[in-house]
Amino acid sequence: MHFTSETSSNGVIERNFTLDEITGVLWSPTSGTVEAPLLLSGHSGGMHKKAPGLVASALHGVATCGFTVAAIDAPGHGDRPRNPQDQRWAEAIRRARAAREPIAPIVIDYNMSLAERAVPEWQATLDALQALPEIGAEAPIGYGGVSLGVVTGLMLAAVESRIAAVSFGGVFVNDALIEAAGKLTLPVEYRIPWDDEEIDRASGVALFEAFASKEKTLHAYSGRHYPVPEYQRDSSARFFARHLGRAADTASD
Amino acid sequence: MHFTSETSSNGVIERNFTLDEITGVLWSPTSGTVEAPLLLSGHSGGMHKKAPGLVASALHGVATCGFTVAAIDAPGHGDRPRNPQDQRWAEAIRRARAAREPIAPIVIDYNMSLAERAVPEWQATLDALQALPEIGAEAPIGYGGVSLGVVTGLMLAAVESRIAAVSFGGVFVNDALIEAAGKLTLPVEYRIPWDDEEIDRASGVALFEAFASKEKTLHAYSGRHYPVPEYQRDSSARFFARHLGRAADTASD
Repeated sequence: MHFTSETSSNGVIERNFTLDEITGVLWSPTSGTVEAPLLLSGHSGGMHKKAPGLVASALHGVATCGFTVAAIDAPGHGDRPRNPQDQRWAEAIRRARAAREPIAPIVIDYNMSLAERAVPEWQATLDALQALPEIGAEAPIGYGGVSLGVVTGLMLAAVESRIAAVSFGGVFVNDALIEAAGKLTLPVEYRIPWDDEEIDRASGVALFEAFASKEKTLHAYSGRHYPVPEYQRDSSARFFARHLGRAADTASD
Repeated sequence: MHFTSETSSNGVIERNFTLDEITGVLWSPTSGTVEAPLLLSGHSGGMHKKAPGLVASALHGVATCGFTVAAIDAPGHGDRPRNPQDQRWAEAIRRARAAREPIAPIVIDYNMSLAERAVPEWQATLDALQALPEIGAEAPIGYGGVSLGVVTGLMLAAVESRIAAVSFGGVFVNDALIEAAGKLTLPVEYRIPWDDEEIDRASGVALFEAFASKEKTLHAYSGRHYPVPEYQRDSSARFFARHLGRAADTASD
């Protein structure tokens, strides 16, 4: 893992990094990270490691709860070259949208392929992060994501016992996701933008139902996929603070 | 409105009151209530104005957000005599539970009757509360409740424009409630205990769907009707703080 830049503002250090072909970013509090939970953050399809919503959530988590947050570009996203097959998928989605045809079947296939490739990349990233002295092997680990980030997180959490809690947003649901959710028993928070125009709310409720987790919480809120309301970001940070063993600075009891 | 007792502990003043045949309680912060939102709190059927969950939420709201919270006993509940018809309903519920028969049809009729009688009582209570110098006519007003408290709140909010936001928990749903929800446009938070044994989760989602509110948020969480997790109480206090125009002391941004 090579850090290629470091900037600091409002109490948050931002470091870009590369790890083989992976490009990523790590946010941490200037005040230090002793025993701080580490959050992995998965962006949506078509976006990148510094998607505005992802950055807003990351900065909120670092600033209010002292989390360390890492994000990496999905294959062919952000700073990474897109292969011809991915290019075809992206173009097919664009064409379907323009023609007002359903994009779900294409997005689902594309997401599954990207997630399969992203899982070992996240595992390598996690190894490298845990090798950093400021993080270490003891930091409790959570994963948060929306859309493509959910697919990746479901596949990752299924094979990666280091992940202790997940917070997910809206995603196109298929049987494979339902099946993956049914194998997970870790604490999960699931958000459904109730007025999303592309993703059917009932499929979100079905995915929430499928989680085998003893501790799960569903948040549906009026509004669309983006932007996520600030109070939902705050709720998500509190969820991680509850389950990753460090009380949020702002939590009340 | 006559205050019959006053005690104080942990920064909260508790005053019992009577208003004609209504028996109630008012919690307020010892630090004062200038511009503090006023929350009306409706207990579940079979409980009373000092039900443990209601008190926990009230104390949380007073202590963390500086709210004033009022609760009154439903007709025939708490300190109020039960009439013969209510007695028959209560016994019918007890018999159905013991025989493992569905209680929903009885509970729904009983709730509707109680709520009809409770609405004018809440309105009289609200008039009396607003006449208190420490509350006044300008305090923003919210209503929170579970089960019977939801039915009452739906009926009350439909006729009472002074109520600006509502937070509801699980309730047996019928067509009249769905219809009442469809007429409400104020901000609403709705909680569904996902593993409740008596109340079907799908009916909760249907009730949430029905609200005509532009701002609505659904929280489903693993667990039963009671107890409500502490983080849900906290979320509810934040909901009222957001919508009643006073930032929670503990809110972050």
